[in-house]
Amino acid sequence: MNDQAQSMTLAEAFGGATFRVNGNGPRNLDVLKEALEPIDGKTFSDHYGNGELIEQFQQQMAEVLGKPAAVFFPSGTMAQQIALRIWCDRSGIKRVAYHPLSHLELHEQDALKELHHIESILIGDKDRVTTLEDVTSMTEDISCLLLELPQREIGGQLPPYEELEAIADHCRQRGIRLHLDGARLFEITPYYGKTAAEICSLFDSVYISFYKGIGGVAGAILAGDTDVMQEAKVWKHRHGGNLISLYPYILSSKYYYEQRVGKMGEYYEQAKELAALLNRCSHIHTVPEVPVSNMFHVHMERPIEFVREVLKELAQQHDIGLSSYVVDQGDSCTFECTIGDKYALVPQQQLHEALRWLGEELANRV
Amino acid sequence: MNDQAQSMTLAEAFGGATFRVNGNGPRNLDVLKEALEPIDGKTFSDHYGNGELIEQFQQQMAEVLGKPAAVFFPSGTMAQQIALRIWCDRSGIKRVAYHPLSHLELHEQDALKELHHIESILIGDKDRVTTLEDVTSMTEDISCLLLELPQREIGGQLPPYEELEAIADHCRQRGIRLHLDGARLFEITPYYGKTAAEICSLFDSVYISFYKGIGGVAGAILAGDTDVMQEAKVWKHRHGGNLISLYPYILSSKYYYEQRVGKMGEYYEQAKELAALLNRCSHIHTVPEVPVSNMFHVHMERPIEFVREVLKELAQQHDIGLSSYVVDQGDSCTFECTIGDKYALVPQQQLHEALRWLGEELANRV
Repeated sequence: MNDQAQSMTLAEAFGGATFRVNGNGPRNLDVLKEALEPIDGKTFSDHYGNGELIEQFQQQMAEVLGKPAAVFFPSGTMAQQIALRIWCDRSGIKRVAYHPLSHLELHEQDALKELHHIESILIGDKDRVTTLEDVTSMTEDISCLLLELPQREIGGQLPPYEELEAIADHCRQRGIRLHLDGARLFEITPYYGKTAAEICSLFDSVYISFYKGIGGVAGAILAGDTDVMQEAKVWKHRHGGNLISLYPYILSSKYYYEQRVGKMGEYYEQAKELAALLNRCSHIHTVPEVPVSNMFHVHMERPIEFVREVLKELAQQHDIGLSSYVVDQGDSCTFECTIGDKYALVPQQQLHEALRWLGEELANRV
Repeated sequence: MNDQAQSMTLAEAFGGATFRVNGNGPRNLDVLKEALEPIDGKTFSDHYGNGELIEQFQQQMAEVLGKPAAVFFPSGTMAQQIALRIWCDRSGIKRVAYHPLSHLELHEQDALKELHHIESILIGDKDRVTTLEDVTSMTEDISCLLLELPQREIGGQLPPYEELEAIADHCRQRGIRLHLDGARLFEITPYYGKTAAEICSLFDSVYISFYKGIGGVAGAILAGDTDVMQEAKVWKHRHGGNLISLYPYILSSKYYYEQRVGKMGEYYEQAKELAALLNRCSHIHTVPEVPVSNMFHVHMERPIEFVREVLKELAQQHDIGLSSYVVDQGDSCTFECTIGDKYALVPQQQLHEALRWLGEELANRV
């Protein structure tokens, strides 16, 4: 290896590999350009939440999710806080519950508390999905329970569908609203063998994202009853999300939704295939062992500096990018793997050989 | 006139006219496509507020505004609430002051109160700009005074620059932070004969918009001291505005900024010219009589149904769109006129004849 190759970062080596097991390709301008290309330039912008362009897509998504109404949002962070705020205001209880590794707990700068003065109860164990018992054993009054399906921070795990139904029943009986963090909702439909609308029927409000498995530019939908969505529009305005034009996100969301929603079954099968290959490698295991969506986490029982070097060599010498980053966990390290369009392009024999090499390096290199 | 022409709305008639005195053209997809066209599709997206694409533009705008730092926001509604929240948190006084027709008072669904629990003091008279005396005679303690320049809802009026300086002095002496609602900041630089940075030097924090005179798709910049902008980024995250990709707005903002910021003097001269022509018409006057930016309000002393018909005929028979809408004021009606790229394309003789016809119709038609 020459000096240049050695000084390359893992992200650069990943970006330089011909094949990648992960994702839908780089997040560059072509993602938007491709989505806009087929659309007539004379098409009018949406206008502060109104106009055919936004209303048509909201209607389409309401139907997909089996809800009376839907509102397009620039972000899920905004959409979910607003759903929880509405449920808190209606019940008069400014308290909600969710998993300890929820997006709201980890990635939103305490917004629910700082902006909405809503208290969060973290239920269950951080290393597993929320159970019916977690919910029934809660002693505090809450207005709303948020469930994230799949639970992203533990590799995209899912409770059995019957347990979901039991949680929904319990909440209905207790007057607790159930909200779905469905950032990756379409990704779990193959495992459950249910449509998005069937899954959503268990929930009072639902958020979905367009830049996870769908691979759009950004944007989210919140869906639920018409009166709730009317209120959500007022809060969207207050948050500063009622932009004069959201069409760059709406049009790309619609384009990639239509392009990829039918591929979720394929991604799911490929995720299981790749996880099985990885679990055969020494010093590697995936969480969950058998994926239940297009994602899983990869744990490598070696120090981060070592793993980074080996993954760089994998990208450079075997021409296959496994991950652009690794996260330090002390003696081991992890990364998230999300199957998208790119996996199908990887030659199988090359992948098998590369992973055999990887397992040997992890086992034998000093 | 045939039946079809009669049933047309004013907006349709305006849209169908070859020439328009108002704006930069329709807000359609071509606005974005034109801005993206020259940029390499391989350019990487910004990533949750980081990356060269967003950082470079923030740096450029910080320099233009003469501030140490700047943050790009999806909307001004978000940016301004956050600036005011930061000033309130720092002073411990949850009270701010602004003009009775401020954007925050009229167009934000009480967000400052509902989201941030900040009280607003409305100072001065709604029909004129804020004066030094309005500020010095305030009895309540406030953390921040917001000034909107120009004051949009009264036709884009401005205080004398010396009065601005006196207000800034007073605020500095009293420990009151001064925030600029500069949605139309570049539009006032020709009248004041000052650069944007010179005007901003009077203020502690500054917001500018990219879809007013600049004519972009959407987006805003908040600028100020580095520590304040660091805090603003945390709040942007909480509001749900820290999108994974803001590049559709950033790139179009940059494109149209560079295309139009140098034209503000021309727009201003044209606004004065058009206002003078309109003020010569019977039953029409503009506010202000002599514009101080590229905008003014047009008041027509006739009932709205009558005016709507006459403006439709103006668009259809004289091929000049004056406005796409009118707002009912009882015996009279009004609309806002904002000069952009389209005005220069209107043939002067045709405009003079059309306005002469308009004045006669307003005076004589029963």
